[in-house]
Amino acid sequence: MNFNPQKYYLNEISKFEKKYLSTAKGKEPVSLYEPCDYFIESSGKRLRPFLVLLSAKAVGAKTNSVINAAIAVELFHNFTLVHDDIMDNADKRRGRPTLHIKYDHNTAILAGDNLLALAYEYLLKDCKNNGISAVQDFTKGLIEVCEGQSLDKDFEDRKKVSLQEYIIMIDKKTAALAETCCSIGAKLGSGTDKEVNALKKYGKNLGLAFQIQDDLLDIMADEAELGKKIGGDLLEGKKTYLLLKALEKAKREDKKLIKKVIENSGIRKNQIQTYKKLYSKLGVIEDASNEVKRYTKLALNSIKNITDKEAKTTLEWLANSLTDRRK
Amino acid sequence: MNFNPQKYYLNEISKFEKKYLSTAKGKEPVSLYEPCDYFIESSGKRLRPFLVLLSAKAVGAKTNSVINAAIAVELFHNFTLVHDDIMDNADKRRGRPTLHIKYDHNTAILAGDNLLALAYEYLLKDCKNNGISAVQDFTKGLIEVCEGQSLDKDFEDRKKVSLQEYIIMIDKKTAALAETCCSIGAKLGSGTDKEVNALKKYGKNLGLAFQIQDDLLDIMADEAELGKKIGGDLLEGKKTYLLLKALEKAKREDKKLIKKVIENSGIRKNQIQTYKKLYSKLGVIEDASNEVKRYTKLALNSIKNITDKEAKTTLEWLANSLTDRRK
Repeated sequence: MNFNPQKYYLNEISKFEKKYLSTAKGKEPVSLYEPCDYFIESSGKRLRPFLVLLSAKAVGAKTNSVINAAIAVELFHNFTLVHDDIMDNADKRRGRPTLHIKYDHNTAILAGDNLLALAYEYLLKDCKNNGISAVQDFTKGLIEVCEGQSLDKDFEDRKKVSLQEYIIMIDKKTAALAETCCSIGAKLGSGTDKEVNALKKYGKNLGLAFQIQDDLLDIMADEAELGKKIGGDLLEGKKTYLLLKALEKAKREDKKLIKKVIENSGIRKNQIQTYKKLYSKLGVIEDASNEVKRYTKLALNSIKNITDKEAKTTLEWLANSLTDRRK
Repeated sequence: MNFNPQKYYLNEISKFEKKYLSTAKGKEPVSLYEPCDYFIESSGKRLRPFLVLLSAKAVGAKTNSVINAAIAVELFHNFTLVHDDIMDNADKRRGRPTLHIKYDHNTAILAGDNLLALAYEYLLKDCKNNGISAVQDFTKGLIEVCEGQSLDKDFEDRKKVSLQEYIIMIDKKTAALAETCCSIGAKLGSGTDKEVNALKKYGKNLGLAFQIQDDLLDIMADEAELGKKIGGDLLEGKKTYLLLKALEKAKREDKKLIKKVIENSGIRKNQIQTYKKLYSKLGVIEDASNEVKRYTKLALNSIKNITDKEAKTTLEWLANSLTDRRK
């Protein structure tokens, strides 16, 4: 029978989900764990835990042996979302009210803290081999995510941000955690240094491709498929890969138009098509798309020597499907 | 020459302080590390790191071998203070503006997160022997502190809180971290299970004594010595050991008076003396004082078999000086 990576993903995630959903269920005090549970229950692609499971498999370990570590990275990810939503004043997340809206600010701060604490608790359950090293990588990832979020907030207030600075920011805010997932999966699975490094490189480049693809989808996706309004980043004046690349390439009148997005902290809704055309004219949509392809290729190249055929096929499938994704 | 525990404390803390003050200094992004540094720079008794150092010494290890773990618990403690100050809407801390006042809410949330991340980073530097177990205890302490803070916030909104519930809350919010300090110091110092358990018991009971003493000082201390207004807990209607014990003991008119503190969410400034007298009459000041003594004795009893004379003397000195403290 042929191995089907998508089926494998769905199957692994369904096992994961079952255990994940129980992590805060029924615990006391209710005032702390009910908000945690509310957030845990909201669905997601669970890509980060899947990276942990898949990296363990790639080095010859059973995915079951790192399922708690997989739970840990999803809890970690949710901790960042809860606190980021407060900082961004976001009302909705995954189609439901954000935690600070559903409850209140204080509850959300503390629930976020507790999600992080639970993340460490779960990670430590799977720390037998190379344990300390895995916790160190997890902590390094956490620090990078904090630094990345700080840079992201900085950029909001700054008039000038270079493309290079932007890459450093998404490297920390998004790619570092993907790298961490691969690293701890491979380390806890007792992978060799060579295997660990190959998978880390895969995770990091996948993360970068993922984020630039996100920027691209904001303007290129189908509204119904994406599940949110097109051009949201432009409306908010968000300094995305597209905007910063456009700022780099545009001249004269075009440059003025691009600068206006930053100066006015966003555009009006009826200007979205104008800017989409301008992006096309400047070639930044192609540039972004090429960057996504380049990082995806780097990810794929790094895993050439993975011996577990199924894991390798799945890592390839994952990288390619993230690039082709429409939401 | 005679061993002087106080000199020993001052000497160890001065070495600690030097290293501690460098933990966030000059790091980037500035927007993240400068607020962290601002908080790290504010002085404190550094009791928690001292418990780590002292517990390592008590099991025969060099304090130097756990100095990073000592830094970790102070960073952890500061993380809780930064987030608690947001939740409590506190303006001042250690005589300076709190972090969210000096900067803003978002900066304080993220700086708090990063202080916790740094805490793990430093702890892991000292994790050679019994490493995973120490990180597990640290994480257990973190979860308890989150739970304790959640209970504390709950109690603010509740009309009825029993003394037993109060003890559970301070056990989690204050005593758990002191217990954690002793546990990781002893474990990283390669103490035996017996030594670890003895020191954990010491830390936990010391923490409980410390918190009830805090409640007592709020009404009994000398204003100039304490450095803040007397009766602050009564003004805020805070459910302290004294208030809950008074509620348990008072009858008729006295009970009505005590209930009023909760019903009106606090009293007026000119009523403080009336309540102080009522507390005396009900005997709850003596009760609290006896509880402090009882927990201190439990702490002292638990370390009877510690063989390192200097460590034992210092542990005894510390427990007694906390009970006798006036601020």
